[in-house]
Amino acid sequence: MNTNTTSQNNPSMDLLEQSLAHLHSRQFFSAFPESPKEYPEAFITDGEKCFHQKLNNAFDGLYDTGCKTYIGEEVSPYLQTGLGITYPSFDTPTLIQQAQSAAPEWRTMPVTKRAEILLDALENIKNHFGELAYATMHTTGQSFLMSFQASGPHALDRALEAISLGHFELTRFNRDVEWTKNMGKFDLKLKKEFFPIPKGIGLLIGCSTFPTWNTLPGLFANLITGNVCIAKPHPKAIYPMAICVAAMQKVFSNHGLPPTIVQLATDTVAHPITKELCENPHIQLIDYTGGNDFGHYVEQIPNKTVFTEKAGINSVILDSSHNLQKTAQNLAFSLCLYSGQMCTAPQNIFIAEKGIMTPEGLVSVEDFKQILAEAIHQLVHHPKAGPGTVAAIQNDQTLKRIQDAAHSFTEFACKGQPITNPEFENARTLTPYVAVVNSDQKDLYLKEYFGPFAIIVKTSDIDESIQLASESAASKGAITCLTFCTDDTLVTRIREMLNLSFTPVSFNLEGAAFVNQHAAFSDFHVTGGNPAGNASFTDPNFINRRFVWVGNRYMM
Amino acid sequence: MNTNTTSQNNPSMDLLEQSLAHLHSRQFFSAFPESPKEYPEAFITDGEKCFHQKLNNAFDGLYDTGCKTYIGEEVSPYLQTGLGITYPSFDTPTLIQQAQSAAPEWRTMPVTKRAEILLDALENIKNHFGELAYATMHTTGQSFLMSFQASGPHALDRALEAISLGHFELTRFNRDVEWTKNMGKFDLKLKKEFFPIPKGIGLLIGCSTFPTWNTLPGLFANLITGNVCIAKPHPKAIYPMAICVAAMQKVFSNHGLPPTIVQLATDTVAHPITKELCENPHIQLIDYTGGNDFGHYVEQIPNKTVFTEKAGINSVILDSSHNLQKTAQNLAFSLCLYSGQMCTAPQNIFIAEKGIMTPEGLVSVEDFKQILAEAIHQLVHHPKAGPGTVAAIQNDQTLKRIQDAAHSFTEFACKGQPITNPEFENARTLTPYVAVVNSDQKDLYLKEYFGPFAIIVKTSDIDESIQLASESAASKGAITCLTFCTDDTLVTRIREMLNLSFTPVSFNLEGAAFVNQHAAFSDFHVTGGNPAGNASFTDPNFINRRFVWVGNRYMM
Repeated sequence: MNTNTTSQNNPSMDLLEQSLAHLHSRQFFSAFPESPKEYPEAFITDGEKCFHQKLNNAFDGLYDTGCKTYIGEEVSPYLQTGLGITYPSFDTPTLIQQAQSAAPEWRTMPVTKRAEILLDALENIKNHFGELAYATMHTTGQSFLMSFQASGPHALDRALEAISLGHFELTRFNRDVEWTKNMGKFDLKLKKEFFPIPKGIGLLIGCSTFPTWNTLPGLFANLITGNVCIAKPHPKAIYPMAICVAAMQKVFSNHGLPPTIVQLATDTVAHPITKELCENPHIQLIDYTGGNDFGHYVEQIPNKTVFTEKAGINSVILDSSHNLQKTAQNLAFSLCLYSGQMCTAPQNIFIAEKGIMTPEGLVSVEDFKQILAEAIHQLVHHPKAGPGTVAAIQNDQTLKRIQDAAHSFTEFACKGQPITNPEFENARTLTPYVAVVNSDQKDLYLKEYFGPFAIIVKTSDIDESIQLASESAASKGAITCLTFCTDDTLVTRIREMLNLSFTPVSFNLEGAAFVNQHAAFSDFHVTGGNPAGNASFTDPNFINRRFVWVGNRYMM
Repeated sequence: MNTNTTSQNNPSMDLLEQSLAHLHSRQFFSAFPESPKEYPEAFITDGEKCFHQKLNNAFDGLYDTGCKTYIGEEVSPYLQTGLGITYPSFDTPTLIQQAQSAAPEWRTMPVTKRAEILLDALENIKNHFGELAYATMHTTGQSFLMSFQASGPHALDRALEAISLGHFELTRFNRDVEWTKNMGKFDLKLKKEFFPIPKGIGLLIGCSTFPTWNTLPGLFANLITGNVCIAKPHPKAIYPMAICVAAMQKVFSNHGLPPTIVQLATDTVAHPITKELCENPHIQLIDYTGGNDFGHYVEQIPNKTVFTEKAGINSVILDSSHNLQKTAQNLAFSLCLYSGQMCTAPQNIFIAEKGIMTPEGLVSVEDFKQILAEAIHQLVHHPKAGPGTVAAIQNDQTLKRIQDAAHSFTEFACKGQPITNPEFENARTLTPYVAVVNSDQKDLYLKEYFGPFAIIVKTSDIDESIQLASESAASKGAITCLTFCTDDTLVTRIREMLNLSFTPVSFNLEGAAFVNQHAAFSDFHVTGGNPAGNASFTDPNFINRRFVWVGNRYMM
């Protein structure tokens, strides 16, 4: 990526075109390599240094003119001590006023120029990938590698997706036209001009587990379409977005623009300001990631354009397998990865009571319980892979909720337990529970257990498995469905049924392919069609609903 | 247009490509000539014959298998007698069940095949343009020419817009891809496939003034994206949509498809079924055109995708003119056309109290009242142009509401009066009222008067005119704004201010250019950004919100 954006230059436009082409082809593309090894070593070492310097200090680099209050109450899931970092805290009227004063310059700038500046912003966030990884790790509990990848390259690839599709959508219609209509005896001629008018001020409400990956797509979609933004991270995971907003504000200032094109809004658990922001009449756009109750509230606020990613219940349909060991290992990894705190983590595993068909014959549910428990055990207790896979539980409530939930169940394939993280002796850890129920115990399994908790649901047959998975997706929402099935006819039926509940299905994954992964430029993350969320990034709606085409006509 | 659609053929695809190119260029395009003279003369004569045959009979040609009830209560605004035509009436569960049974075949058909069939459907509706004109005239009160144009070629051009943009959106992403991600030591390979899954069943709620022009865009947008449809016209204007639905059902049957891919739902004013349909859980999409109260109700129904065109208050900003006579004539025509029963008709005319600047000096508001009244008088009493321009008032309520409204005003430029239509002595007619108020009388002018009623609002200066027009658009909605202004700096300011209220502005129209006209493939009709409606046809949202992208992944 090129950082010289003083004039329209080809590298920026090339990157946009290249990424747009991949977005349309849906082939693999990444502008930001996901391996830390592909970045200078100093990225990581400097990042760690920055992290330690920030601890117990006021965060420096964010716009704070006139700010009188600094707040912060983050706790590291690895250290279980407070980070002590504080951030500028503005009240809502000030945030709105600062956004409004930045809006005209940003709104009226040509989209190509906006794109160049936003690519610059990505480039400057990239400079902070190392610190971003530590910031993410010590607020979300993700492993270092996931923190690096999810908050850094993957989030920026998602942001680039939004920029490139946004640039396309804003330039796809002719902006000026001489319109000539033959009226028989004469031509009627009108000059017409068309403007994509941004909706106004966008609010981005972040969550505590993926603070940048979930926020940057909406943020950059808002920005490329000309809106100004207020990012409101979760009070327990401000640090990663503080890094991003500071990096962006610096780029805006360098370009002679108001830094408050993007602002950071901060609050505490005791004194939340999110509802006040949501209901402010000057907020026109809301992007939200988080739990269902607040998500439902946000969706119902009148006269706002709202994009949500809420929670769903992801199903596994386990019918048959060419290699049940590999299947169990794949499933075990997806259950363990970041201790089930991913929106794509599977929860309910539907298996017909007669068992799972394999080349060696039917394997009973009882036997599969052992096989899965063993696969989980091998993974979580693997000295090298274990601690990094399960990572840490983001907060005490999640830990307690999962442990409490376990009391409602009587049968288990395995029970959750803490494991030792040799690097962080105080890490908050819990390996997955896998409970077992019958399909009539809907009160137990037709709800979301956020965290390391899965449930094997014994069904009468594959038909019931499919029916329950698709009903659950339609009524409770689902972001993905993992299916193991060696029968092509069944594969088609499962695909058709689940897709009708607007749920993507991944079939027979093994090796390095996991259901948890949704790739930028290829997978439409969250379809927006079922209760798990009303939007998908990055599909055309994710861009086009943020602005309005307005045409004017002039007599010629 | 080519009607041979047994296989993919170039003419159909050519037409789609050509219309899509124009939609993007926004230059003039029309697949259906708007002049009756460009069609065989028999189109009109046969149409009149069909119309007379239909009177006092059950409408033949609509799907009515198992139907036991026929209803109909339309009244001609020209004859002021009932048409006596009855239409099959199914109850809601039957309509839903018939839609559901037609859905799988339509949903799973390749989009190009769907497009070909829909182009066939347009072609078959075209065969009924003559009857459609009479049907529209004798339900809406439009003139014959407007009835022909609006319900025929203009509506079908709008439908074609939806088909061509729909075809583009559904084919823009690669549908199958081999996705390869290099993982360092090996390649991770996945086969991915992407399906645009239609949302389900669409309900189209029509209005009594533009029964097909407002309904066909949403109908064809639903269909091209794979949804099945129930069209529910206004009980007083069923006939035009009955013709369209019958013509479409015939095409579906000819293609061996279930005719109930599109159904006609009918009701009466006394026993309406629209709310029952709206709230049915199997209806996922609602397109609505009509008044604000019902529109607001429709927008608030949870878990539906809703497209509305409601009412707004269209403003005129009259600042200055190079030729005030031409300006007055242009404005007079727009006020008289179909007696203000168009969603694009101007209502409030903002003029600074000091008057209007012209090459001859300032013209006072008092003088302009005379000039406008005279222009209206000349037009409505023109023996040839008058009756055809004002046409007829669709219903008694509109007439009464306008006459009652007049009692609230004390000053008028001119008062409404009936005129004689030599062709229809019983025609329900009323020429426009033009009242005059001061800008502080907001309770009088900040509401919509549907019908032939305009208000000159005297403002302190142009700043107040702009402020009131843009405030009114933002708070009450506006579909368009007509401005007469010879000062380029002011033109820019007006454009910027009104566009920020998501209102298009037409400047200095004269001759054959009128603010009422929104052309297919060029003007985005209704922006969707202010309270006049939440959707625009045809912008990408009008298509993309009707289906959901769902991707599946397979291990390779």
